[in-house]
Amino acid sequence: MSIASNKVLIQEAELKNLGSQAFQRLGLPPADAADVVEVLLLADLFGLSTHGLSRLESYGERLKVGGINAHAQIKVSNPAPAIRLIDGDNAVGPLVGMHALRAAMAAAEQQGVGIAFARNSNHFGPISPYGLIAANAGYASIIGSNATTTIAPWGGTDARVGNSPIGFGVPHPGGNHFLLDMAMSVVARAKIRNALKAGATIPSDWATDAEGLPTTDPKQALDGFLQPIGGHKGYGLALMVDLFAGLLSNAAYLTHVKSWVDAPDEPQNLGHFFLLIDTKRLGSPQWLAERMSDFAAILHGSPAALAERPVIQPGEIELARMASQREHGIAIDSDVLALLRRA
Amino acid sequence: MSIASNKVLIQEAELKNLGSQAFQRLGLPPADAADVVEVLLLADLFGLSTHGLSRLESYGERLKVGGINAHAQIKVSNPAPAIRLIDGDNAVGPLVGMHALRAAMAAAEQQGVGIAFARNSNHFGPISPYGLIAANAGYASIIGSNATTTIAPWGGTDARVGNSPIGFGVPHPGGNHFLLDMAMSVVARAKIRNALKAGATIPSDWATDAEGLPTTDPKQALDGFLQPIGGHKGYGLALMVDLFAGLLSNAAYLTHVKSWVDAPDEPQNLGHFFLLIDTKRLGSPQWLAERMSDFAAILHGSPAALAERPVIQPGEIELARMASQREHGIAIDSDVLALLRRA
Repeated sequence: MSIASNKVLIQEAELKNLGSQAFQRLGLPPADAADVVEVLLLADLFGLSTHGLSRLESYGERLKVGGINAHAQIKVSNPAPAIRLIDGDNAVGPLVGMHALRAAMAAAEQQGVGIAFARNSNHFGPISPYGLIAANAGYASIIGSNATTTIAPWGGTDARVGNSPIGFGVPHPGGNHFLLDMAMSVVARAKIRNALKAGATIPSDWATDAEGLPTTDPKQALDGFLQPIGGHKGYGLALMVDLFAGLLSNAAYLTHVKSWVDAPDEPQNLGHFFLLIDTKRLGSPQWLAERMSDFAAILHGSPAALAERPVIQPGEIELARMASQREHGIAIDSDVLALLRRA
Repeated sequence: MSIASNKVLIQEAELKNLGSQAFQRLGLPPADAADVVEVLLLADLFGLSTHGLSRLESYGERLKVGGINAHAQIKVSNPAPAIRLIDGDNAVGPLVGMHALRAAMAAAEQQGVGIAFARNSNHFGPISPYGLIAANAGYASIIGSNATTTIAPWGGTDARVGNSPIGFGVPHPGGNHFLLDMAMSVVARAKIRNALKAGATIPSDWATDAEGLPTTDPKQALDGFLQPIGGHKGYGLALMVDLFAGLLSNAAYLTHVKSWVDAPDEPQNLGHFFLLIDTKRLGSPQWLAERMSDFAAILHGSPAALAERPVIQPGEIELARMASQREHGIAIDSDVLALLRRA
């Protein structure tokens, strides 16, 4: 395996240990540090390094100034047999996420379906790690979180909607799960920055200028707002995620969500939802494995428009990278490794 | 209210009666006809005339050739406290949809969350009518259906994925519900046909040519495939809908779904899912109404990029049209009215 020059290879067990020690030095009890590291380490295994253990830096800064509570007492209540409400007590996001995931799994095991609504939380990492844990236990999932507002309402001219992520998982008992994890913008801001550096224009559906009008100029785009996928459709999806993750969970929503950049020492009151379905209640693992294999085979059978880019199903790249990195070691930024060692 | 020259205004009660009589003449028992008409009439009230009572034509053709079962015996089973499985017995789609919706609402009332998976079904109309019925009873909803394959997998070159619709609803106890109902393509094929007629090019993200490559030529696009919103993101969303609606429900999925155009006399075995959450378990109607009003007010408060197009929330146009048409009469195509009278 070739890796970039600023990356080093490290074994999973060692990285897990380093992460756990680092979060414990930031004040987390060992069991809580283990939950946080489980999510962030899976992100690194999937190759999602921007959402992996590199987050120690931003989480650590907020833990140090009291913007995140290192000694949170997370509470779970049951307002209905299949519903769990999680009060995150302003804990590190992935810790709230893992509590909510376990609560939703327990409800789904009992009732067939379970939903956990979490409030008083923070950035909870990427979604696919939660989707993987759920899928490995046989649960299909719809999981979402709201986020600081960075995009304009469709047709509007100021940031009032978060680029909220949503994820969907469907288990394949053989391990080839369907895992989709996406935010609502057409592209991330980094792609616009790259276009600016390269002196290139951008497609008109990537972003608007500061007046809310579509632009092909990357400089104007960086002063403006990212556009959601499909225009009004992606805008609607972003709202749906915020309604489920923020409004229904009794967390903050839209502009009520505090920015961790502008106010790192204040609680954000982010919200999440974890909706799980126990597929074992729908049919046997053999039944599901056959159908999931057939589903993927139908997609793979479509001849590729570009020979070098065969048709894939969401999750394939991440699961393959996880398998490879478990065998050969995890490629991690040397700066992140240094941070883990000294944090 | 001004209406197009080929439209006539008709009162809701009269249209309901005409629809019910028409479906009874096609062999449906009165209660079943009432269920079908409830969904299609709401579509017309919302202004979704392509998915309203005009569907009598295509549904009727298939009922006459035995492709849809007029005397279906729909069965419901409970594999878990919060799960319902609906066997539609190849009934008219909206009839299966209404049975599934009621089953999911009953499960959600008991458990807080309920999901109904329907199989052996047909085109079930638009989603927003179901979302409205659920929202009026206090349920938030995620509802989806699979569809005949018309789009290519992302990067592929033949039709293997349906342009599957998904809908989301969140109730406002005061009636201003959030209702989003969308298919996965950037645009409908009709918009490409219009561009061809006008001699115009189309944006490169609307469709691919027959070789799966993006095109700006509407003629090549009509020989090719619609593109999903956000490229690989919309592709993933379309797959998620089919996995939940088709694969998990034990219905057909992807290319296993029969085309009602190519094989009108054969069962399609479409699948749907109805996932409902009882918001009354999360807080009081007052709590929810305040938050929903505030949510909409934040969006409305964003100054519009174009003065003639103020920021709206999904569902607003449809709910306003319903209120107006209930007061002034429903604008319906004169051909559809003639069809309803003679069917």
